[in-house]
Amino acid sequence: MTIGEFELIDRYFTGIGPGDEAVALGIGDDCALFDCRPGEQLAISVDTLVAGVHFPAAADAYRIAQRALRVNLSDLAAMGARPFAFTLALTLPAADETWLAAFSRGLRDAAQAFGITLIGGNTTRGRDCVINIQVMGGVPAGAALLRSGARPGDAVLVSGCLGDARAALPLLEADSAALDAGQRYLLDRYFQPEPRVALGVALRGIASAAIDISDGLAADLGHILAASDVGAVIDPALLPLSPALRGGDRAREFALHGGDDYELCCTVPPDRLAAAQAAARQLAVPLTVIGAIGADRGLRARGADGALTPLPPHGYRHF
Amino acid sequence: MTIGEFELIDRYFTGIGPGDEAVALGIGDDCALFDCRPGEQLAISVDTLVAGVHFPAAADAYRIAQRALRVNLSDLAAMGARPFAFTLALTLPAADETWLAAFSRGLRDAAQAFGITLIGGNTTRGRDCVINIQVMGGVPAGAALLRSGARPGDAVLVSGCLGDARAALPLLEADSAALDAGQRYLLDRYFQPEPRVALGVALRGIASAAIDISDGLAADLGHILAASDVGAVIDPALLPLSPALRGGDRAREFALHGGDDYELCCTVPPDRLAAAQAAARQLAVPLTVIGAIGADRGLRARGADGALTPLPPHGYRHF
Repeated sequence: MTIGEFELIDRYFTGIGPGDEAVALGIGDDCALFDCRPGEQLAISVDTLVAGVHFPAAADAYRIAQRALRVNLSDLAAMGARPFAFTLALTLPAADETWLAAFSRGLRDAAQAFGITLIGGNTTRGRDCVINIQVMGGVPAGAALLRSGARPGDAVLVSGCLGDARAALPLLEADSAALDAGQRYLLDRYFQPEPRVALGVALRGIASAAIDISDGLAADLGHILAASDVGAVIDPALLPLSPALRGGDRAREFALHGGDDYELCCTVPPDRLAAAQAAARQLAVPLTVIGAIGADRGLRARGADGALTPLPPHGYRHF
Repeated sequence: MTIGEFELIDRYFTGIGPGDEAVALGIGDDCALFDCRPGEQLAISVDTLVAGVHFPAAADAYRIAQRALRVNLSDLAAMGARPFAFTLALTLPAADETWLAAFSRGLRDAAQAFGITLIGGNTTRGRDCVINIQVMGGVPAGAALLRSGARPGDAVLVSGCLGDARAALPLLEADSAALDAGQRYLLDRYFQPEPRVALGVALRGIASAAIDISDGLAADLGHILAASDVGAVIDPALLPLSPALRGGDRAREFALHGGDDYELCCTVPPDRLAAAQAAARQLAVPLTVIGAIGADRGLRARGADGALTPLPPHGYRHF
């Protein structure tokens, strides 16, 4: 590396995020320190993005950083946790300052937008760019949205619309000047997913279970079903599709099995459905009922003729 | 990978560590959850080890895991924090089950030895093996050992002995059958460093500053001096050397500038020196006075003739 690790951290990785009164000590000692708040639980999640595996190595560093932090924030959203602080461990083949400056800007913008503060991390040298982010958030004790709380009779809902990020995959390395508005929208959905943090917090005490959709609706709803020991029937005709995706040959397949959307899938008991929908409306986040939890294990799709077809967690494994 | 991520986590990464009553939810949901304790601060540190950079790619996976966790625990030790929980993000070129089984055993043994519990993580595919560990520990609010508390007149001390890990570097890829007992000891010091967790906890309220020695004594003591805005004079003749290292040509150079020892360097006010030494004696950890803090900035070595020579933070950068 042409600049040292400490200089690099000083230049690109200090003052990221709005700060938080609970951060007693940030970057610069052996550990970061923060104050525990009585009655609060800390929610922690870690995710790794590898160049060439989870994003194109040549992608714009600003967008890589945005996506890396947003994908992690989505895990806090799925627990109903308020974002608090994060650490970054960055492995890079070389200290390219143009790349670092753009990456730092992307991280800074995403951190500011979601009120999360960088409290520590490290940089190391390696052949591939590997981005490792760990996010921490707070949730009142006992209020976290788990995967295990779904019960027969609960409605199954999803936020936003599904399948867009999957539809963006063939466009990831395209020349952006050649793309139309719909294609640019799909790319934005891939690189700048909207972690549903405010919705997750609003669903505390309302949703019985929640997960974020990273591997595809069928796979991730499958995790709720397994953890809750229940089944579900969903109606593919109800899956919310964006105008850019709607009408495409594989739109429903992408919505069912495409990953990377980072929308929330949650279950809500019937007597709280109105409260869930009111909360979403207030946040201007679409929240659509797509089916219901039942006692029979497994995930099934109801066809137009009312017939039930088992849905495997993954589609044809195109990707 | 031949086995799926979930199966891999089930098989190799569950039940690692003794458990902790504060872990409300471990592996298996979007986030891990743990209970904050009133009056406690959480100490957090993250470290990355890349195959071919931080350890030989062909090294025994058991030892790689031991080293990876111990190196991270050393950061908690340097803050006086009690180890609590950790996350692991593991990037691997392939899911080699022999490698994973050995790695899992190493992680399990180190976690048990230091009372730290694995609460989450992920595995991803990438060209290099990259091990990312984040450790979390607890410390009573205000009691953490910072780098910034050293004051003129404080003694400078180091735990254990220094330079062994540097002396092990030429042996890392040697055929172990060809090594003598001294050489095997040096290798153990490299792969299985002893994070001074109990000593760190015992030094709360006694040491004025502390750091762990990862980059070499001169470099790391330099961080204390910079953070505390003071200087120090040390006596190289006082540096504690192991029998295996003692007498070697470059023993003192290794002790001053060799990294990877993961001993503690701390500063202690004169009126608490007896307490520090009693605490170390009780733990059977050598703790040696090697110099003193002064008001003049910079780090100097006192020669046998009493003359002071400035010590650059790094030696000749052999490595």
